[in-house]
Amino acid sequence: MKSPQKENDPHLEDILPLHQEGKTRMVSRYSLDSVASLRKIYTPGVAKVCQLIEENPEKACDFTSIGNTVAVITNGSAVLGLGDIGVRASMPVMEGKAVILMEMAGVSAIPVLVDTSDPDEFIRTVSLIAPTFGAILLEDISAPLCFQVEDSLKARLPIPVFHDDQHGTAVVVLGALLRALEACGRQAGELDAVINGAGAAGWAIARFLLNFGINDVVLCDSRGAIYRGRENGMNPVKQDIAECTNRANEQGELKSVIRGKDLFIGVSAGGVVSPAMVASMAPGPIVFAMANPVPEIWPHEAIGAGAAVATDGRNLNNALGFPGIFRGALNARANAINEEMKVGAARALAEQAHEGELVPDFMDKKVHLKVAEAVAEAARRSGVAEQQPGR
Amino acid sequence: MKSPQKENDPHLEDILPLHQEGKTRMVSRYSLDSVASLRKIYTPGVAKVCQLIEENPEKACDFTSIGNTVAVITNGSAVLGLGDIGVRASMPVMEGKAVILMEMAGVSAIPVLVDTSDPDEFIRTVSLIAPTFGAILLEDISAPLCFQVEDSLKARLPIPVFHDDQHGTAVVVLGALLRALEACGRQAGELDAVINGAGAAGWAIARFLLNFGINDVVLCDSRGAIYRGRENGMNPVKQDIAECTNRANEQGELKSVIRGKDLFIGVSAGGVVSPAMVASMAPGPIVFAMANPVPEIWPHEAIGAGAAVATDGRNLNNALGFPGIFRGALNARANAINEEMKVGAARALAEQAHEGELVPDFMDKKVHLKVAEAVAEAARRSGVAEQQPGR
Repeated sequence: MKSPQKENDPHLEDILPLHQEGKTRMVSRYSLDSVASLRKIYTPGVAKVCQLIEENPEKACDFTSIGNTVAVITNGSAVLGLGDIGVRASMPVMEGKAVILMEMAGVSAIPVLVDTSDPDEFIRTVSLIAPTFGAILLEDISAPLCFQVEDSLKARLPIPVFHDDQHGTAVVVLGALLRALEACGRQAGELDAVINGAGAAGWAIARFLLNFGINDVVLCDSRGAIYRGRENGMNPVKQDIAECTNRANEQGELKSVIRGKDLFIGVSAGGVVSPAMVASMAPGPIVFAMANPVPEIWPHEAIGAGAAVATDGRNLNNALGFPGIFRGALNARANAINEEMKVGAARALAEQAHEGELVPDFMDKKVHLKVAEAVAEAARRSGVAEQQPGR
Repeated sequence: MKSPQKENDPHLEDILPLHQEGKTRMVSRYSLDSVASLRKIYTPGVAKVCQLIEENPEKACDFTSIGNTVAVITNGSAVLGLGDIGVRASMPVMEGKAVILMEMAGVSAIPVLVDTSDPDEFIRTVSLIAPTFGAILLEDISAPLCFQVEDSLKARLPIPVFHDDQHGTAVVVLGALLRALEACGRQAGELDAVINGAGAAGWAIARFLLNFGINDVVLCDSRGAIYRGRENGMNPVKQDIAECTNRANEQGELKSVIRGKDLFIGVSAGGVVSPAMVASMAPGPIVFAMANPVPEIWPHEAIGAGAAVATDGRNLNNALGFPGIFRGALNARANAINEEMKVGAARALAEQAHEGELVPDFMDKKVHLKVAEAVAEAARRSGVAEQQPGR
């Protein structure tokens, strides 16, 4: 499908020079300029640093890179909208995430490709290499594998584990939603939402917004609303969704359940929402149509159909969230990224958006710094700071 | 034991500033200075690079960091002379190796800690993350685990796997030996050697020198010579050693089997060779006493007892070898580091040593470049260059 957005996309010949020989590289923080420095950086001097850490495990944070390092880990199973393209073809995205972490938040980020689609093998592999890192960013892992993998790693590991496609997206959505509510003079507790798309992002957004306090969410997949008692196209995750959402147990297609709702969030496919469907929502609805590259409905169409606020996915880029979230978690030496930290990040994003904007300027490093401060502060308040063992 | 060498070792307060917050960090090779560059480095532009690699797997080498990246992997089980200190306490050594690779040979080197002593689990973990890297440097893994792990990974993976404690040491020893032979006007084929220390380094040196063409080697452990039919203190590796070395099936302590030998190589413990033992060797022997921090015999004592050439481990630092070896293997896109490449590296080291020296100057980057050239050339000649699949 041709769209104005696609025509604005950069061309391959302009893109490739910024990927030549890879976008990341490891460097030394100290100069190896003499045999004397070799004897401190390497043998024999390094042995004393090893012994110091063996005797005082918390010193690993002071005298190794571990505490400032995030692994960006994928199995290449759900890369952008491209699907399961394999680990090596996913590397440019992992490097891209690493670049954003490094350039926007000063985090040392290392892409790691884990070549398996078996959840147990993935979990075991990541667990065994986890001592190398201060936190783990999971990326582009297909649902429902991503839920199992993240839950299991969180339970096993003493460091933050964060699947950005889920929680990073949810944080940015909440940040924008807070701005939209402010603009409309409304409260989160009044909102009934419909989310189209019941994959990793949709379910994470639903849980996060419900935890935050919106009134209700109905999640739809391609068969329509997910409800208790539905029999077609269900799986254990959708059973959970049915239990935790859709209080009135609404049934039917998106076209029918969107009626009367205050908020539409699309993480599904281009063009599935018509102006008439927006017009059927409660007065002055909020429409976040995030499908890529073509949104569920173009913002100008949604506004034309009565939306009070409408945006598409280009504004709600999760690159706004994860750099500051990880910087804050590492600074606090947190053992997890919990709800309080994610809400802190969303509020920091909302606070920094300019007048008339839903989100702040990604290029402004101060934005990421403020997110980091809010996240670290929330980690301390909620008791997960300085909780990593051996630190 | 106090020794002059120990007194020259750097002090902790001088060492720690060069380890503060770790010695390595990941950086971006391209500037993320605008939303336009974000849209090329990350979404939406990056998707086109992923698709290009999915369709042409060999492009991964051109447009990702994989082809210039070496993983420095340990399980922390035999760190320097410190033993099994655990993965996190081993990190300063892994970072040190990474710094040497980066500063001396421009390789991007990533430490990876794998927290298991189970060989199958270690092998599986490294295999699953291997697509991230262009080559793997195994480091500080205890014997006999290191043999099994390296053999298995070499058989499974299409990229070079190199246990530096074994082969890096062997390369530097051969380089120095070539110089010593030149100085003495002798040939490798005339040499009968005794190697004290039957761990990873000792066995690797023995195999490498025998492959290169020295006449015979007797390997000793703390119980003396390893021979066919020995019953005490044997294991499968020592059975292999007994089969492949010690043609005359000599038995007895080091003190007796060293008699009449032309070459002594020590990778064992300080002070185990006396001047009388050197005096009992064939006329004008070569003595490489590499135990750390105190050698088997100090070079001046060995010379005093009649050695034609003697050195200790400070000269024979394997940091002379591995940077150029990996640079060369990556440049050739080799799928292995074979005997020819290792011999090429040793010859390049020998050729570059200054008059009167056994080894060249570690700080001279040209040395590492010449090693790399020799290794890449040997890879091409021996048919392992451009052999990585998907390249």
